[in-house]
Amino acid sequence: MSEPASNPFQLTCPVPIVRHATVQMAHGGGGRLMRDLIEGMLLPELGSGGGVDAMPPHDSAVLSLGDRRLAFTTDTFVVSPLFFPGGDIGKLAVYGTVNDLAMAGARPRWISCALILEEGTPMDTLRKIVQSMRKAADEVGVQIVTGDTKVVDRGKGDAVFINTAGVGVVPDGIDVSPSRIQPGDRVLVSGDLGRHGIAIMSVREGLAFEGALDSDCASLVDLVDKLSVLGCDLHCLRDLTRGGLASALIEMAEHARIGIDLVEAKIPIQPQVAGACELMGLDPLYVANEGRMVAIVPPPAAGAALQIMQSHPAADRPAVIGTVTSDHPGAVQLSNPMGSGRLLDLLSGEQMPRIC
Amino acid sequence: MSEPASNPFQLTCPVPIVRHATVQMAHGGGGRLMRDLIEGMLLPELGSGGGVDAMPPHDSAVLSLGDRRLAFTTDTFVVSPLFFPGGDIGKLAVYGTVNDLAMAGARPRWISCALILEEGTPMDTLRKIVQSMRKAADEVGVQIVTGDTKVVDRGKGDAVFINTAGVGVVPDGIDVSPSRIQPGDRVLVSGDLGRHGIAIMSVREGLAFEGALDSDCASLVDLVDKLSVLGCDLHCLRDLTRGGLASALIEMAEHARIGIDLVEAKIPIQPQVAGACELMGLDPLYVANEGRMVAIVPPPAAGAALQIMQSHPAADRPAVIGTVTSDHPGAVQLSNPMGSGRLLDLLSGEQMPRIC
Repeated sequence: MSEPASNPFQLTCPVPIVRHATVQMAHGGGGRLMRDLIEGMLLPELGSGGGVDAMPPHDSAVLSLGDRRLAFTTDTFVVSPLFFPGGDIGKLAVYGTVNDLAMAGARPRWISCALILEEGTPMDTLRKIVQSMRKAADEVGVQIVTGDTKVVDRGKGDAVFINTAGVGVVPDGIDVSPSRIQPGDRVLVSGDLGRHGIAIMSVREGLAFEGALDSDCASLVDLVDKLSVLGCDLHCLRDLTRGGLASALIEMAEHARIGIDLVEAKIPIQPQVAGACELMGLDPLYVANEGRMVAIVPPPAAGAALQIMQSHPAADRPAVIGTVTSDHPGAVQLSNPMGSGRLLDLLSGEQMPRIC
Repeated sequence: MSEPASNPFQLTCPVPIVRHATVQMAHGGGGRLMRDLIEGMLLPELGSGGGVDAMPPHDSAVLSLGDRRLAFTTDTFVVSPLFFPGGDIGKLAVYGTVNDLAMAGARPRWISCALILEEGTPMDTLRKIVQSMRKAADEVGVQIVTGDTKVVDRGKGDAVFINTAGVGVVPDGIDVSPSRIQPGDRVLVSGDLGRHGIAIMSVREGLAFEGALDSDCASLVDLVDKLSVLGCDLHCLRDLTRGGLASALIEMAEHARIGIDLVEAKIPIQPQVAGACELMGLDPLYVANEGRMVAIVPPPAAGAALQIMQSHPAADRPAVIGTVTSDHPGAVQLSNPMGSGRLLDLLSGEQMPRIC
């Protein structure tokens, strides 16, 4: 492995460029290195350009077919362990992909299931996982309509990896996209941060908490469906996965070329999560969720959006946590109770490998 | 690992049932064990039932959206080595998925690209692979519109795995499906068998051949487009991948509940492939292709279909190799030049692991 080349502009002018000779764990971590790989190599090499916007990771492509708009997305799941408090890889594989469709304002219709199985994996494990997928799909109302199965030699995989791709339909009157974010818009989060990441890490590290700390792993489809009554006032949605709230907002700010001001005291974090983060030296703003989202709406719609979230079972302690600004475009600023602020940056390294 | 339970009816009455306690390499091999896993566990557990036909592996789901029909498919590629004579995993990942769409009569429109990268994989390797994907996609005229990138620890993957899902549109007037196969239909193959499998095995086993023996890895999209002038006379299409010609025809015969009579002398096999198969103890009828297909058409259309194939660069030595019959439904019979016949059966084991 080579060392990254020196780049004195890295912090102030992050041009996406692949600076390592080999793949690092952090290239999958949701931070700066993943962005560099995607925007510095994968999008330029693969992106088709012809009429389809280059999409940031985790989002769906929105495609015109006659007078309809389809959303299409893909996500691979390599979470370790396969089973964790509040979920498993099967449930995650369904929710992750339908949530990506929902973030484009689409109603999920069909998903695929492609398995990479490691030789020697117990069939009972596989059966539990596919049963969990089916249960999640039934709950959301999507059909698993096509699949593929590959087997790799012992030591060339890790029990079960799952790819799900998804196709949905964007209803008329819905246009959810980073390009619609405006200065003055309010930033809402649908619930408390970091529970999925901490639930996974607690299993890996053998930590015990007082009371259960389950992953927040959940479908956001019905919540988005309820929010869609806001119609054109739903400017942008984004689910929080790898890299947590901070990474999601930084990417939105960079892509939309707007700034975001966050009020630290408004950000919902459970005491158990805050404590575990302190113990493990993690920043909860960067810890993964799998059932939380950010919604960006104009000020008059913020109250209604919050009310919808407050009465929905997929949300938990939702809050208005900040405002979009034309100051500091591309940057997210966090103000603390003392009134001072700090700019959030994408982590270049890797807080938590393989959490989804 | 447990031994399979005894089943005296296995050969004559193959009820799909998962008989192993753990995943075997053969569960991904395209033969009986893969079928048992898919039809004995995955389809019953995952299949949605509600209006979508359960599809045999490698095929696309055909889905109604208003008055349009979409095809949707997924395929993961774990081929080893990543680069082989005539192709690489990137090219294969594009062609494999667009071919699956084409086999449903669909015009491929959009594909996804989901990568599982092993820590430590050289970036140059990855760049070559994605460049190859882009080149193949441009050639076929599909756009890569959405993607995902995961990284797994060293020793938990094998350099690069790629999943591509694809969405296509089935033109009006095209209805290609196993249910349309009729007794008397002719069975055509678009070219010589087994070159992909032997090209891969030659690298693994370090075999050298006189003259180049390249994989047949190719897009079948344009060939199907040309064949679609046959309209309703294009009864069924199937690309030959894992398990080769024999497995593809047996699955079609079982699903359509018809018999197939093959004339051994008509089946095109290059002498180099036949020789390599003899050397390695392989049956070329079961060796994988990645750019060949079977077309089933009524007798009056067979001449035109053959002529279209003969003048198309994606075909090579195409031939009419057999006839559909109402005798022996579910079975494929091969008659040799001496006039005697034998029934082909799905291999239960594994001829060639990880060829796609």
